[in-house]
Amino acid sequence: MYEKLTFKQISTAMRAEIITIGDEILIGQIIDTNSAWLGSELSKIGVQVVQISSVSDQAEAIVSALDLAKTRAELVLITGGLGPTKDDITKHTLAKYFNSTLVTNEEVLARLRAWFEQRGRTMSLMNAQQADLPNNCEILRNELGTAQGMLWRDDRHWILSMPGVPYEMKFIVTHQLLPLLQKDLELPVIVHRTLMTCGMVESQIAATIEAVENEMPHYIKLAYLPRPGIVRLRLSGRGSDKAKLQLEMAGYEEKIKALLGHHVYGFDEESLEEAIGKQLKLKNATIGTAESCTGGTIASLLTRIPGASSYFLGSVVSYSNEVKTQLLSVDSREIEQYGAVSETIVKSMALGLKSLLQVDYAIAVSGIAGPDGGTATKPVGTVWISVSGPIEIITRTYNFGNDRSLNIERASMTALYLLWKMLVVN
Amino acid sequence: MYEKLTFKQISTAMRAEIITIGDEILIGQIIDTNSAWLGSELSKIGVQVVQISSVSDQAEAIVSALDLAKTRAELVLITGGLGPTKDDITKHTLAKYFNSTLVTNEEVLARLRAWFEQRGRTMSLMNAQQADLPNNCEILRNELGTAQGMLWRDDRHWILSMPGVPYEMKFIVTHQLLPLLQKDLELPVIVHRTLMTCGMVESQIAATIEAVENEMPHYIKLAYLPRPGIVRLRLSGRGSDKAKLQLEMAGYEEKIKALLGHHVYGFDEESLEEAIGKQLKLKNATIGTAESCTGGTIASLLTRIPGASSYFLGSVVSYSNEVKTQLLSVDSREIEQYGAVSETIVKSMALGLKSLLQVDYAIAVSGIAGPDGGTATKPVGTVWISVSGPIEIITRTYNFGNDRSLNIERASMTALYLLWKMLVVN
Repeated sequence: MYEKLTFKQISTAMRAEIITIGDEILIGQIIDTNSAWLGSELSKIGVQVVQISSVSDQAEAIVSALDLAKTRAELVLITGGLGPTKDDITKHTLAKYFNSTLVTNEEVLARLRAWFEQRGRTMSLMNAQQADLPNNCEILRNELGTAQGMLWRDDRHWILSMPGVPYEMKFIVTHQLLPLLQKDLELPVIVHRTLMTCGMVESQIAATIEAVENEMPHYIKLAYLPRPGIVRLRLSGRGSDKAKLQLEMAGYEEKIKALLGHHVYGFDEESLEEAIGKQLKLKNATIGTAESCTGGTIASLLTRIPGASSYFLGSVVSYSNEVKTQLLSVDSREIEQYGAVSETIVKSMALGLKSLLQVDYAIAVSGIAGPDGGTATKPVGTVWISVSGPIEIITRTYNFGNDRSLNIERASMTALYLLWKMLVVN
Repeated sequence: MYEKLTFKQISTAMRAEIITIGDEILIGQIIDTNSAWLGSELSKIGVQVVQISSVSDQAEAIVSALDLAKTRAELVLITGGLGPTKDDITKHTLAKYFNSTLVTNEEVLARLRAWFEQRGRTMSLMNAQQADLPNNCEILRNELGTAQGMLWRDDRHWILSMPGVPYEMKFIVTHQLLPLLQKDLELPVIVHRTLMTCGMVESQIAATIEAVENEMPHYIKLAYLPRPGIVRLRLSGRGSDKAKLQLEMAGYEEKIKALLGHHVYGFDEESLEEAIGKQLKLKNATIGTAESCTGGTIASLLTRIPGASSYFLGSVVSYSNEVKTQLLSVDSREIEQYGAVSETIVKSMALGLKSLLQVDYAIAVSGIAGPDGGTATKPVGTVWISVSGPIEIITRTYNFGNDRSLNIERASMTALYLLWKMLVVN
């Protein structure tokens, strides 16, 4: 697995491994978000993360993880276990591992003293000990906390230990590690491009773009990354000539877009709500929602977007039939005749909202989210969605299954998809 | 490290390891939340997670991680890489690892067919292949998706592969794996009890209950687990006599409850919305919301609770001033005079909604979520919240900071806390 090359020589295919230390991760008390951030930052500069390992605050576990990481990667980033309290043993463990002696770093001590003074706090002995650092590593300065970065490098490996507090770790990586890496290494070219799609599931997309996928060379990969209601298609290319690689990838991107049409709503982590917001702004149009089973979720999604107030005017959450008839002018005899979960009523809700709020587009949803309320003809999961625009009204029915939360989520995302389609297809 | 005991014998000190598979984790496109959930569930039944490893979608990486995990743990839980598309290779890799042959499982195939039929979709060949499963493992049924759990067990190890989609993975663990583990093993006595609190931050709680915490023996631990707007206090006890341990823990629970009063709204993962729903049902009372900056989020939270329709009648999301004046009868001259984000207007919104929907309780929120719209006197993060009940109206102002999403979340949770307090204190 590991070729006999120096750190610098292997830099064009550099591999990294992340080790996070802390029992709180293993027992699920905190979610490790550091690794995702590191993975994303490293892949941007062409360093490939090959493994992430979370281990406990025990010397043997740390040493064993580090030994293994060194067989798979040249760059090893360790986070956590650098606090001043007893249960944090990373510094002592690594000092022993690298045959270091701990000595007081006067520059760091002065900085810590100033740090506490500035905050009007006294520096305890425990805090002062944070300046006792291994004598054979480089200190990567942490300006946001008391634990410093410690970097050991030789011809083959860079091993960096950092605190686990996210903003402190990010400071050390951004201001100290990345500049060092970029200075020292010739990094490979890695290009990522993500197409955001809606209204199709993974397998439908795969069937539609199969031919393009088969055509792609081994150095361009396609990954399907589903989220509720959307699927992200990530193209990753690796090579030496960036412009050439980007051009080639743009070709595949175009082919995929041509096959998927309006289902591609955006790029690179854009949300569907954001894409919808842009379209509404372009058209200088306004929107509102009339929600029964989704209970305000669609309004909540649309208003998460900064600047939503320029196109989103308001919503009526019409959970009870009285709210439907009173505010949305739904005919109570029609509710009796067809039931609240029906084509007639959901259309009527959309039109009622449109005239109530004087919006250009209205989304209405009525369904049976469950767990109760299902019948033989309208089982739990039955949802009617209506989208009314300036020139047409689209009304569809779905069954999203038995889970209440999923029903609400899927109904919301499907309604946004139908709106998106109306905004861009016509 | 590994003692020569069978799976059953070592069950009282059972160790587990989690392997998550997928390049999307390594390049930081998704944050691995599965591991934290698994770590938390396993530690509840006394199983200690010793390592979490995230590896790429490559056969060698998967096999190597599995081999190493088996030297450290008896239970290995693998998530991810079970989708129907080409980039998902976990099933084939494990089948080869365990010398299995893939055969069509007719029961699973029938279930998949029904699953697609129910949703009005055709099952593609790719989807049907999800029923081709190894012939020498137990199939742990996944009712929420197409990829099944695959469990190989012998005297020494249980190896379980599951899909990476969180709710599918959780379904398999909760409904299939945990019952199997509890049936087969003599697990140590571990008792957990979580007090759910609202309206106080960690440090306030710690200061209030310090004396009780100091009194607790070493075998009962207290963990503070914050979530937006709430803090969970988890008591964990370990011993041999379950009844005795429970009794002792109940004593500490009572002491903590007495000190925290109405701030303890429930137990064991109950949500604040659920607790509120119970209170409203008890009082036979109804509720609605009038939301500006929270954009329907409070309505969405309240209606996630099964049975919400018995007390939740509806909401008006009044993003624009016209909706405030037209639907909520807010005086437009008062908006001009005081601004939409003011005590006068938020009170008026609450009272307007109450009379519009004829509800017993109304929550109204008006604020500046950001990033734009702040002024010198009303900076971004300024939020007014009003809760109006049958006998009183409480109106408060807050500043929740600069982040739009956090502002919406904090405003929503604070509004629910104020409602909770009104429901139980008076």
